Amino acid sequence: MADDCVFCKIMKREINADIVYEDDAVVAFKDINPAAPVHILILPRKHIPTLLDMEKDDEALMGHLHSVANEIARAFELDKKGYRTVINCGSDAGQIVFHLHLHLLGGRPLLQTIANGRGA
Amino acid sequence: MADDCVFCKIMKREINADIVYEDDAVVAFKDINPAAPVHILILPRKHIPTLLDMEKDDEALMGHLHSVANEIARAFELDKKGYRTVINCGSDAGQIVFHLHLHLLGGRPLLQTIANGRGA
Repeated sequence: MADDCVFCKIMKREINADIVYEDDAVVAFKDINPAAPVHILILPRKHIPTLLDMEKDDEALMGHLHSVANEIARAFELDKKGYRTVINCGSDAGQIVFHLHLHLLGGRPLLQTIANGRGA
Repeated sequence: MADDCVFCKIMKREINADIVYEDDAVVAFKDINPAAPVHILILPRKHIPTLLDMEKDDEALMGHLHSVANEIARAFELDKKGYRTVINCGSDAGQIVFHLHLHLLGGRPLLQTIANGRGA
């Protein structure tokens, strides 16, 4: 854990969040500024600052984030119509909190122009 | 492999693509309609139609897609400024080809409003 990391503080219950899922390796909570009817952040307990910092040994963990995304998608009934996952890495992508996290977005149609990043 | 899948056909070299990376498990090629200066699609050789179809046994493979994304990001010099990865799952997300693929986008600033899916 990193002492100055907001997401580590959420995991330590030092900052409140609406946690929707947790297990030994992963925590997920609602984005406080949601961009879609369902907008959940899914992150490893391990403090990995950015996607670029993941190591070969983290591959199973990265995959597990996606299994959790699917589980949450089913729980929020996104599985019928679909959803998007996004990882922002570094400044060009607008990463704000430097603790690797997967955005799960759904609950309304997400523009095709943004489906592939166009317009971004 | 699926006989009617465009991405499987690319892997079988029945359809041309600008392949930038391949190994035993993963193939990556340039998006034919790029939304950013660098827009690469990274996909498993295994025909998994959507993210929702991934199984627990696919977690390491999903993680490997992200290791490959990082390797390609470094090769295209996106590691300094950043990049975004996106998976579209199903109709609400505008998934077009039903063979699971990770979009890698970079080479210019990607709007903050879209960083978290806002405006989508």
